[in-house]
Amino acid sequence: MTPTTNASNSIIIRLKISNKPGMLAKVTAVIGEHGGNIGAIDIAKAQKGALVRDFTVFTEDVKRAENITDALKQMDDVEVVSYSDRTFLIHLGGKIETKCRIPLKNRDDLSMAYTPGVARVCEAIHKNKKDAYKLTIKNNTVAVVSDGTAVLGLGDIGPEAAMPVMEGKAMLFKEFANVDAFPLCLDTTDVEEIIATVKNVAPTFGGINLEDISAPRCFEIEKRLREELNIPVFHDDQHGTAVVLTAAVINALKVTKKQAQDIKVVVAGVGAAGMACTKMLLGLGIKNIIGCDRKGALYTGRDGLNESKQWYANNTNPNKEQGSIHDVINGADLFVGVSGPNILDENDLKNMAQNPIVFAMSNPDPEIAPEIAQKYAAVIGTGRSDYPNQINNVLCFPGLFRGALDCRATDITENMKLAAANAIANSIEEAHLHSDYIMPSVFDPKVAKAVALAVHQAAIKDGVDQSSIKIVNK
Amino acid sequence: MTPTTNASNSIIIRLKISNKPGMLAKVTAVIGEHGGNIGAIDIAKAQKGALVRDFTVFTEDVKRAENITDALKQMDDVEVVSYSDRTFLIHLGGKIETKCRIPLKNRDDLSMAYTPGVARVCEAIHKNKKDAYKLTIKNNTVAVVSDGTAVLGLGDIGPEAAMPVMEGKAMLFKEFANVDAFPLCLDTTDVEEIIATVKNVAPTFGGINLEDISAPRCFEIEKRLREELNIPVFHDDQHGTAVVLTAAVINALKVTKKQAQDIKVVVAGVGAAGMACTKMLLGLGIKNIIGCDRKGALYTGRDGLNESKQWYANNTNPNKEQGSIHDVINGADLFVGVSGPNILDENDLKNMAQNPIVFAMSNPDPEIAPEIAQKYAAVIGTGRSDYPNQINNVLCFPGLFRGALDCRATDITENMKLAAANAIANSIEEAHLHSDYIMPSVFDPKVAKAVALAVHQAAIKDGVDQSSIKIVNK
Repeated sequence: MTPTTNASNSIIIRLKISNKPGMLAKVTAVIGEHGGNIGAIDIAKAQKGALVRDFTVFTEDVKRAENITDALKQMDDVEVVSYSDRTFLIHLGGKIETKCRIPLKNRDDLSMAYTPGVARVCEAIHKNKKDAYKLTIKNNTVAVVSDGTAVLGLGDIGPEAAMPVMEGKAMLFKEFANVDAFPLCLDTTDVEEIIATVKNVAPTFGGINLEDISAPRCFEIEKRLREELNIPVFHDDQHGTAVVLTAAVINALKVTKKQAQDIKVVVAGVGAAGMACTKMLLGLGIKNIIGCDRKGALYTGRDGLNESKQWYANNTNPNKEQGSIHDVINGADLFVGVSGPNILDENDLKNMAQNPIVFAMSNPDPEIAPEIAQKYAAVIGTGRSDYPNQINNVLCFPGLFRGALDCRATDITENMKLAAANAIANSIEEAHLHSDYIMPSVFDPKVAKAVALAVHQAAIKDGVDQSSIKIVNK
Repeated sequence: MTPTTNASNSIIIRLKISNKPGMLAKVTAVIGEHGGNIGAIDIAKAQKGALVRDFTVFTEDVKRAENITDALKQMDDVEVVSYSDRTFLIHLGGKIETKCRIPLKNRDDLSMAYTPGVARVCEAIHKNKKDAYKLTIKNNTVAVVSDGTAVLGLGDIGPEAAMPVMEGKAMLFKEFANVDAFPLCLDTTDVEEIIATVKNVAPTFGGINLEDISAPRCFEIEKRLREELNIPVFHDDQHGTAVVLTAAVINALKVTKKQAQDIKVVVAGVGAAGMACTKMLLGLGIKNIIGCDRKGALYTGRDGLNESKQWYANNTNPNKEQGSIHDVINGADLFVGVSGPNILDENDLKNMAQNPIVFAMSNPDPEIAPEIAQKYAAVIGTGRSDYPNQINNVLCFPGLFRGALDCRATDITENMKLAAANAIANSIEEAHLHSDYIMPSVFDPKVAKAVALAVHQAAIKDGVDQSSIKIVNK
């Protein structure tokens, strides 16, 4: 893979540069020589005989950013005044805050929003608990709950360290679907304690988004919370991934003119995401799916399978294929990777069916380098934004919860997820579909709206809506 | 008490009124006759032969608001188009929302606020957990936690119905001290479950404000959470009330030229608030405090006292006075009411010492009507905004948590509370003190700032700060 410079590793360097001809060329040359891609150059101040400038520099990684700074420090007539990592800069103080939706500037405001007026509102909800959906933030608020055990590729880093991800998620909810989300990172990894805690805080929320909780605990936690709460509970790592993957599959099948019931699929990784992806692909009508863990293909009769892998083996792989992933990939039309980097090699790609589809979603390093895959595959998708066809959960969860909140849904059903997948897929007109354009941009504002509407309608069809609870006057 | 019309019982009535001379006079007369105080009159639209106007009408209670509407419906040439209760209107959809502190408009933003950039921030916090104070909302966020068991004067109305109060509290935190607060109303009243839940969500927060949890459970919950968490835990009903009452006492003693060590105090109500008020008054140097419950004075040797009342009896009432509140009020310089309406009668006031101070804080109906008390008392204070000297917790909690967050305090100590009380009292210059002006306005922006600074300094003095954790670059 060609290394790429990007904003996530960008720095702002403030330099005091002597006012001599050719200095800016020298400085920019040094930055370029050390792998820095220069963005904005702003004049911070003019001093006697020198200009102070802020250079925004995009780098490949932190090490190169340090190299650039070190090299600049060696230069004559240049002083490194300060140095900021832009990613850390934007995180200072946290990424979200509370905003009042109504003014609180005088006694009249206070007497309505707080005492004594608020008492009448409390009494109304006490009489009819469902009024909480009209008169409190339950109307529009989702908890983003994690125990910090499976954060990105970082693993079990604990609740404090998981917060930046959950705050980021809350931002995405707000920006893409105007859902108010609040991060709750839990200081326990015990299944029963997590269940009890989420149930205890549930009155505040209209939905629960579980996030980055390690398998197999995440299965039990989601299952129990769905059973025991009357608000939607959605483990995004499982079902969000499954929804966007399903959308990608729907459009890739159109591009390659293949039929769901005919294709052979290999899924690498049968953890939380792999299980959920497989279930949705079965729902799409795909018959021949083979899941692989580190020991190879799952099949009925394989020894030492845990409960969820046993379920997997019993419900997939109708031809009971055995062997390593390199064996079973033979003749596969679709590869779904939710495992780790470089699981496949070039030879595996050669052995796939005609016009194979490769969705290598391991992040940041895919199951096979797209540069290699593109030599053989008809369609490639990854989790990354720097290749075509990014399969990103943000296409799903904001719109999905928007739709669920809009009809006060009590659950997220299979049909609601499938409706979301179809809405994402259909947000690209068939005439515009292309092997490099099967997934819409995460910044396409139509997507969340389409997902919300489809999910809302599916909720009504499945009878999990509470559409009678409406806010009049809003 | 003279009934008062107020915003908390205000309505907006939309009327279609025929274009005939004298109609507006007739309409306003009907509203006035039925006890409505008219505010804004806006023209909503002009129609053929009629004007549609919105009347904002302040009323004494809901019944009168309905009477007004009914009377208007009887009028010729007037049509009641719609009718809205302003307090309910502002509550629609909830009172707070999430706001992003940084933009999220393009791929660069996304790569820094979310993946892949966020991973480096997570790793930094994983290496040094205290960095959560710099890089997450823990920096500025307080949980407002209630189980809905003792909400205002409404009692045990449950978590959903408590939400409007907690959302209001979150608004006050934001407006008065720029603290981001988030309401969590818990679906359990079990002490151990509440403790476990709050401990589990604590990584997200820089402080915990407990609210409207009934006694005696609130004592154990607060005590245990203070011991077991390393962020400040503050039960506002106890300590917020105690801080503002102490501020009022400090200034009332100045106005009446009485000395703390000389005065006799009677406290009506020895629940959560009464206990906390008494402890702070003892800290102020007051020697002779007599607490009364429904059975009368607490004294060492009284039968059937529970643990907290036993503590109270042993640490107050040095002269072991016995009898009803009407007995022990004799010769008292200060009455502190945190009980219920109309506990005292006119005769009790006559029997107090010279220039008595009466703080009748029961809400909305004080322990004695201020109209009666003012015939005898040198200083009167209530919890209400429609009499002088409002003793309102909002003078304390925003600034107190501001100060605690600013120095990453791990606890709220007695000195921090006393510092807050003194800061509130001192926010009125001595030259301006007057029997009707011992408490600053809740809208005085100086108060929260002064409280925050005093609390911050007291935290450092008591060594409960973590001032070394600083956000540079902010």
